[in-house]
Amino acid sequence: MSTNIPIVENILNANDLLAGQIHDRLERAGVFSFNVMASPGGGKTSTILRTVRTLMGEFRVGVMDGDIVPIDLEELAKMGIPVSLINTGGNCHLDANMVIGALPTLDLNALDLLIIENVGNLVCPAAFKLGVDLNVVIASVPEGADKPYKYPTMFRGADVLLLNKMDLCEYQGFDLEYFKHGIEVLNPGVAFFPLSCRTGEGFDAWIDWLRAKIKTRSAATHVGQ
Amino acid sequence: MSTNIPIVENILNANDLLAGQIHDRLERAGVFSFNVMASPGGGKTSTILRTVRTLMGEFRVGVMDGDIVPIDLEELAKMGIPVSLINTGGNCHLDANMVIGALPTLDLNALDLLIIENVGNLVCPAAFKLGVDLNVVIASVPEGADKPYKYPTMFRGADVLLLNKMDLCEYQGFDLEYFKHGIEVLNPGVAFFPLSCRTGEGFDAWIDWLRAKIKTRSAATHVGQ
Repeated sequence: MSTNIPIVENILNANDLLAGQIHDRLERAGVFSFNVMASPGGGKTSTILRTVRTLMGEFRVGVMDGDIVPIDLEELAKMGIPVSLINTGGNCHLDANMVIGALPTLDLNALDLLIIENVGNLVCPAAFKLGVDLNVVIASVPEGADKPYKYPTMFRGADVLLLNKMDLCEYQGFDLEYFKHGIEVLNPGVAFFPLSCRTGEGFDAWIDWLRAKIKTRSAATHVGQ
Repeated sequence: MSTNIPIVENILNANDLLAGQIHDRLERAGVFSFNVMASPGGGKTSTILRTVRTLMGEFRVGVMDGDIVPIDLEELAKMGIPVSLINTGGNCHLDANMVIGALPTLDLNALDLLIIENVGNLVCPAAFKLGVDLNVVIASVPEGADKPYKYPTMFRGADVLLLNKMDLCEYQGFDLEYFKHGIEVLNPGVAFFPLSCRTGEGFDAWIDWLRAKIKTRSAATHVGQ
């Protein structure tokens, strides 16, 4: 006679199941989506604002923000962008359960692009899939060129890496080669865009790349319908 | 007949008990101690290096570093400073259990000052007491003046607040009054030192304040002996 011993599944499995559901719902609605992760003050909000301003004439954009206060969303709301605040209550990351709970606050059929702003943290958010198409990680020049070496999980999980505040590169004496070497070791071939939200330097390359991704999703959805 | 129902204690209580033990051991050995918390790239290592260089002629200093790689400790070790690496294995904070486990790697009786560098994270480390005399929080100018409003728990728990990278203040258009207002609301009267690890601006005021604190501890220990 054999005894079945139940195996406790990885605690992250529940999150992954919900992330899969989010992905299906977004895909069915034809919504391209990405999750923005960075240190506090790395430039998540600035990047999102500039990206939205650049693309809002072409695509219907919505933004979800994991934060304890809605100060980041006010400017977007004024621009007429549908926004949703996930009050994390001081939590250190977003998880799929929080995102799936917030999805009904947005009309997905009225969106082409959903941007999710994660909590400012280079550690915890890396462990929780949100079911989006892309994980966008933003590093910034004043943080120093050693960040990939010190936060490898976050950099390894990036689908796109933006290096923000490039206008400070010379002043900081930022060692771009050292930074890039860390990236190449951890995440070879990752899409990489050095840019500055302040000056706009390098922003076009990121937008062109992103635009092509959104259009590919949009075309696939129309073929499928 | 009454039934005793055991109450599950707050999960943080175990941490607080260990933190109390750390505090007792450091106090008995006459070691003044502080815990440095900041965002990734906010300037923990630069502040520690400059503080150690300035004070190592006056006090016997040791450094404990919560990190996954020892790159921050190499320079200190070269200077002859006793160092201890707590390999956090990618964890998002230090807790008292990690620190108490690392204490035997340092000869406390040969130290006047112990500096603990926490993981780069403005959220999680705030929840775990380490039994030190001071929690030092470092914000930095390029992170933006809104950080106290967005990470209130960390700023509320600070005993000292350093605002680093003041040399970038003018370039960034940093709103110092807005920043200070956030601090005053959350943590009125907290010791506050704007400075720059790069230029040295403002560093003397922090060092003078710290020196007085260490001397007070040292005097109290000698009286008690």
